[in-house]
Amino acid sequence: MANSPSGDSMLDRLVRILDAFDAHNPQLTVSALSRRADIPKATMYRLLDELVSHDLLARDNTGQVRLGLRLWELANRSAATYDLRTAALPFMEDINQLLGQNTQLSVLHQDEVLIIERLSRPGSVVNQANVAGRMPVHRTSMGMALLAFSRPEIIRGFLERHRELMTAAHPDFHAEIAEIRRIGFASLDGFIDSETTGVAAPILDEAGYQVAVISVVVPRDSGALQPAALALRTAARGIARALHIRDS
Amino acid sequence: MANSPSGDSMLDRLVRILDAFDAHNPQLTVSALSRRADIPKATMYRLLDELVSHDLLARDNTGQVRLGLRLWELANRSAATYDLRTAALPFMEDINQLLGQNTQLSVLHQDEVLIIERLSRPGSVVNQANVAGRMPVHRTSMGMALLAFSRPEIIRGFLERHRELMTAAHPDFHAEIAEIRRIGFASLDGFIDSETTGVAAPILDEAGYQVAVISVVVPRDSGALQPAALALRTAARGIARALHIRDS
Repeated sequence: MANSPSGDSMLDRLVRILDAFDAHNPQLTVSALSRRADIPKATMYRLLDELVSHDLLARDNTGQVRLGLRLWELANRSAATYDLRTAALPFMEDINQLLGQNTQLSVLHQDEVLIIERLSRPGSVVNQANVAGRMPVHRTSMGMALLAFSRPEIIRGFLERHRELMTAAHPDFHAEIAEIRRIGFASLDGFIDSETTGVAAPILDEAGYQVAVISVVVPRDSGALQPAALALRTAARGIARALHIRDS
Repeated sequence: MANSPSGDSMLDRLVRILDAFDAHNPQLTVSALSRRADIPKATMYRLLDELVSHDLLARDNTGQVRLGLRLWELANRSAATYDLRTAALPFMEDINQLLGQNTQLSVLHQDEVLIIERLSRPGSVVNQANVAGRMPVHRTSMGMALLAFSRPEIIRGFLERHRELMTAAHPDFHAEIAEIRRIGFASLDGFIDSETTGVAAPILDEAGYQVAVISVVVPRDSGALQPAALALRTAARGIARALHIRDS
């Protein structure tokens, strides 16, 4: 693929451009985009014309730039997450209504928790998770449940890359993940809001390894933890069954 | 942007590659991908390596190719549809449960109906709509409701491009959209399954023009049409209010 004088390819630049947008920056001026993507402004204007003509990016009437609807369409109509999301949504609605709390569906991706879906509820406790947002593994119940139910080589690989971070937060890491596996769910006090506790139950494949995790955030010390965990484990089994039926 | 000998840019080829995947073809062999994207196989292999290294595409263990999770993440975390979807989902759940039918949220995009969100329900009538799928404007209640509540210049532009198709299906087009505006919803017999009827109500901005449409498919001749229309109009008003509160 053709490289620019600076040596990075068109695709490198495209990924940096898309990466410049996030939940806090859904719209950017061309200057801000050029700065965040580390692309000279003159080059940025030229790329922008081509990206807008394909509707991968769009300009609003104030000249600000945002992601185009065509990009969303291309990325979503055959998304790898589609079957998982379709199987999980009815159970997420049940949890959302029965527990009255925000409900998340997440996967382990590139050593982080990637949130695939989220149902919110007015009046539920604070929760910083956004769809397609990322959260750290060692600081969330989602991450700990995903890791505990991963294949041994995945746990080993994760620890090789993040041992210090993990053992600082979880000095008895191995005992802790053995306990998560034994009880079938993970819980962890909120790292952004310490008044809350995250609870997460894994959705397992037929070999007993996680494919995703379903989770809620409940007020701390409310006696809500055990009932929430049981409800989540029930929903997780239902989702796993719906996924397997779909496969067969 | 650097062009290949055939004169199309890297971005043209990337869009064709992403466009080769859809709900019916979530995974493709390299040969099939090369054919569908109209890119020589040798070039395809080279592009594939770079696309996989960025996780825009992914290879599964049988060598088939699918969209990468990173593409999904980049396209979703600041999606233009995010606010709309967040405002609409609780109301879509209500409709889904009260009417017991699949519920869609759609927008008008490039002269077609683009489905932004869908909640399914076991036992509901047949419905071909998929998330990020497209449907024709003139054959769906979604499309007719979106068009009827569009600005006059959008209706004119649409008719200039698609007059024959539209007037063949709707000989009294202008009377029909006037009636849709008067009663506040559109209904149309299913064009894939003639035993069903689509019902759609627009979500309006403060100037009275559509920003999206919420719809269900009900069994035909069941007396379900009028109650469904009233429920959808109620939900559409709730969504509009939730969107405006968010903006202010």
